[in-house]
Amino acid sequence: MAKPTSKPGANLKINGTRLWDSLMEMAKIGPGIAGGNNRQTVTDEDGEGRKLFQKWCEEAGLSMGVDTMGNMFMRREGTDPDLLPVYVGSHLDTQPTGGKYDGVLGVLAGLELVRTLNDLNIKTKHPIVITNWTNEEGTRFAPAMLASGVFAKMHTLDWAYGREDAEGKKFGEELARIGWKGDEKVGARKMHAMFELHIEQGPILEAEGKEIGVVTHGQGLSWTEITVTGKDSHTGSTPMPMRKNAGLGMAKILQLVDDIAWAHKPDAVGAAGHIDVFPNSRNVIPGKVVFTVDFRSPDLATIKDMESQLKTGAKKICDEMGLGIEFERVGGFDPVTFDKNCVSAVRNAAERLGYSHRDLISGAGHDACWINRVAPTAMVMCPCVDGLSHNEAEEISMEWATAGAEVLMHAVVETAEIVE
Amino acid sequence: MAKPTSKPGANLKINGTRLWDSLMEMAKIGPGIAGGNNRQTVTDEDGEGRKLFQKWCEEAGLSMGVDTMGNMFMRREGTDPDLLPVYVGSHLDTQPTGGKYDGVLGVLAGLELVRTLNDLNIKTKHPIVITNWTNEEGTRFAPAMLASGVFAKMHTLDWAYGREDAEGKKFGEELARIGWKGDEKVGARKMHAMFELHIEQGPILEAEGKEIGVVTHGQGLSWTEITVTGKDSHTGSTPMPMRKNAGLGMAKILQLVDDIAWAHKPDAVGAAGHIDVFPNSRNVIPGKVVFTVDFRSPDLATIKDMESQLKTGAKKICDEMGLGIEFERVGGFDPVTFDKNCVSAVRNAAERLGYSHRDLISGAGHDACWINRVAPTAMVMCPCVDGLSHNEAEEISMEWATAGAEVLMHAVVETAEIVE
Repeated sequence: MAKPTSKPGANLKINGTRLWDSLMEMAKIGPGIAGGNNRQTVTDEDGEGRKLFQKWCEEAGLSMGVDTMGNMFMRREGTDPDLLPVYVGSHLDTQPTGGKYDGVLGVLAGLELVRTLNDLNIKTKHPIVITNWTNEEGTRFAPAMLASGVFAKMHTLDWAYGREDAEGKKFGEELARIGWKGDEKVGARKMHAMFELHIEQGPILEAEGKEIGVVTHGQGLSWTEITVTGKDSHTGSTPMPMRKNAGLGMAKILQLVDDIAWAHKPDAVGAAGHIDVFPNSRNVIPGKVVFTVDFRSPDLATIKDMESQLKTGAKKICDEMGLGIEFERVGGFDPVTFDKNCVSAVRNAAERLGYSHRDLISGAGHDACWINRVAPTAMVMCPCVDGLSHNEAEEISMEWATAGAEVLMHAVVETAEIVE
Repeated sequence: MAKPTSKPGANLKINGTRLWDSLMEMAKIGPGIAGGNNRQTVTDEDGEGRKLFQKWCEEAGLSMGVDTMGNMFMRREGTDPDLLPVYVGSHLDTQPTGGKYDGVLGVLAGLELVRTLNDLNIKTKHPIVITNWTNEEGTRFAPAMLASGVFAKMHTLDWAYGREDAEGKKFGEELARIGWKGDEKVGARKMHAMFELHIEQGPILEAEGKEIGVVTHGQGLSWTEITVTGKDSHTGSTPMPMRKNAGLGMAKILQLVDDIAWAHKPDAVGAAGHIDVFPNSRNVIPGKVVFTVDFRSPDLATIKDMESQLKTGAKKICDEMGLGIEFERVGGFDPVTFDKNCVSAVRNAAERLGYSHRDLISGAGHDACWINRVAPTAMVMCPCVDGLSHNEAEEISMEWATAGAEVLMHAVVETAEIVE
């Protein structure tokens, strides 16, 4: 373990029990059916969760701003009126069968670090603003990271308002209905920096016994929906040489996807999670298979290369089998390289606090990935049990939450500059 | 072409137009939505179809018997009271989106051959009985070939009566409701022989330009449902070496299935038509895949060998990938070897009539496959367009139907012995 340095605030510790109690209190709102949460964006439950967070923030002396996407900004003043605030936060909304930590930890760790600074009567030169980004999950209203996306000018406000849920309800109307459509212009705020703590949602930290992930990059994503077309025919009465088995074509392409991902190691990954077989009957050779290939890498050129190898290779497989094939790019975003100084602040904080750490590439999308386009940004990750997330059984330990929140605090405080 | 011989009845020709007209008339009952039929077993439409068939048979001078499974037996007397009847027939029920010929052709070709014998005032020593077997399709009440199965003592009557459709209605009650539960004991009838004409439901005859398939065997079937278990995890945040991708395991097993089938050529086939992926989400590596492998061969030892290679090979694949695997045999029947003399009668008939023909293995199950266990049996097949069946677009030509019915008639008449 590294020896704590003598920097200002080097001995700052958060109150892990208080953080944990707040997490458990928030989890009572929109309980799931299996111990987790169903507090989807702009539902009544989301509104209730926001009110609780607002109450806690006001008790901590923070003032609130809300923009027209419902993003909440809870401000602790700095001592220098000319300096831009340091932002910290994540999201309070959950998946329909979500966990208690995904997003919520990042918001309430922001609250805890402010409470700690209050306890110790520590002031910073820069203001600190805790943010709750609206609709990070995107399950009710696609896409994910909707409001941070509008903030970062990836989407227009009108387009976001028009997103519909499965019942045809519009995002903008639902946001107004729960009373959280604010009046601030989205994206008008300028940030000195932004930090987000999030659970890893992957298995690396736990497997390697590391307490902290220093997130240097966000993986870029490429989703290609592939339709392989063969010919429906009877599994019994169609001789092998006369078959056009779209299922077998898909199988060979899945192997190709795996080969391509391994060939681009160490950081590239590839798989197909979505596979639909038609007509999906035991005695009919599949005439059509539709599946989505998910390639990710922190390097844009690698993603382009994987896409190209997939198209060439899959086309060759289908040509040889007499199958048709079509490709459609159904999703994607470019890799993210987080701000060097912010990343250093996170790494330094972990060092200073003596937590074991490693650099990490975020495999999932986060609000920080969009905000990084408009402000210097970095992320802290803590382990989660078995890499499990988007699941009511999602779990972390109080020790992991505490370590993550402490590293977050030290990075924020170093950036916001303690008034000595 | 072979020169017609001088055997009795060698110049017998059916009335192809009359057969075709009857097929079109029957197809008006229980029309589908796309030009085919929805005349599922023991529905009101099935009852209506049976009444039309009964009327036609009575007009042709036949007497009716109905057993307690609703199987219809329409008898034309022979001249020798000591001889057992020659049976001919198939089924009038269809798939929910079925064609106009699957089954129906075999029943109405029986009617047409009797009409022809009547026209020409030809008598046979053996009686001839046209049969409509109840519930061949098995889509409403599984399994397929239910009533011929009870006839051949593969199932008990009570078990058959208790089969339920998707709405929970019982087969026995529905049979009584439409008024076709007869009083004959199922399977009490003794048969001299049984012949079934059926469309091929495969592409071989059309591809080779053959008019007649002489069916020598029915393929045996083995259905193995395989469950591969991995671990649901995020497609982005799970490094390649830490994945347990059940979808990739399935892909490798599908390739193995194909390899095994080819290694047992020429008559073995193998594929998976049914594949369910869980949770089937674009950004989740499949934690579970359930799929069914369909192996068929006319040789029982080959089927056993393929099953054994599948289990060993698939287990090895999953072991190497850290995946779990379970096998369940969810269906199967032994290969059928049709009666040598009956098969010869079919082949001789095709020769005598000058129709191009080839020996064929039936890939699908048919009533004849069960009846072959209790009586000497054979099948005649005619081509169908593009091998398409179990589809409203199922199509055959009048010429193919005529050739098939003529070969059927000659085989039946040779077996039932013309009175000279």
